Amino acid sequence: MASKNESKPTPKAERDRATGRYAYDGLERVLHERARLSILSSLASHADGLVFNDLKTMCTLTDGNLSRQLQVLQEAGLVEILKGYKNNRPQTLVKLTPDGRERFLEYIAVLESVVADAAAAAGKSPRRSRALEGFSPA
Amino acid sequence: MASKNESKPTPKAERDRATGRYAYDGLERVLHERARLSILSSLASHADGLVFNDLKTMCTLTDGNLSRQLQVLQEAGLVEILKGYKNNRPQTLVKLTPDGRERFLEYIAVLESVVADAAAAAGKSPRRSRALEGFSPA
Repeated sequence: MASKNESKPTPKAERDRATGRYAYDGLERVLHERARLSILSSLASHADGLVFNDLKTMCTLTDGNLSRQLQVLQEAGLVEILKGYKNNRPQTLVKLTPDGRERFLEYIAVLESVVADAAAAAGKSPRRSRALEGFSPA
Repeated sequence: MASKNESKPTPKAERDRATGRYAYDGLERVLHERARLSILSSLASHADGLVFNDLKTMCTLTDGNLSRQLQVLQEAGLVEILKGYKNNRPQTLVKLTPDGRERFLEYIAVLESVVADAAAAAGKSPRRSRALEGFSPA
């Protein structure tokens, strides 16, 4: 029930509990899935784009899986797929779109916060407290 | 075809192509899925464990989804679930196992390399090169 005391400052531990502190909403599924993250990272590191076979090798993906994931990324507007020729052989070149680059960097900023949270947690030494009193394995 | 010149040092760009450089094998699916990553991050930051309802709020998950994900994490040996009482009310306490903490930190180390790769890539200015010659939108 509400009480008149609720206007007093909330301790940090309570704020953590109240705010979806660890929800990481920015980890969009379309970018977060491992094979797609792998593809996007490769492309972010190669601004000129990568041909299909090089991308496949860098990400250790099969032809079929890479094709499927590229289709998902293209439909989401994250990559563009260019058909052309190199040394008279047909090749497929894949590039991040400008929007894809921006959304990838936004995603990476959220990953950075995950890493920072873990680093802060690892800095704390584990300890047992009264929170465990009365608990036993399920 | 193989040639006698293949023993010369391989340029960095070629090594990238040959090694699954961006495969990020350490991003285990059981830890990488967003809801589970959220749960593990919350628990890593609270060494004494968290009661079910606090965990639910911090991760912005429904009862059903949190229950399901906790079962997956428990079966993978990453968390332990303790049943007990607090203020005479039944409560469920969730904690990382020692193995869970270790695997979470290994996972975070891979995330750090994803972030580092993206930071290195963002430092490069995009440029067009001969790689794009002869390519047109698919």
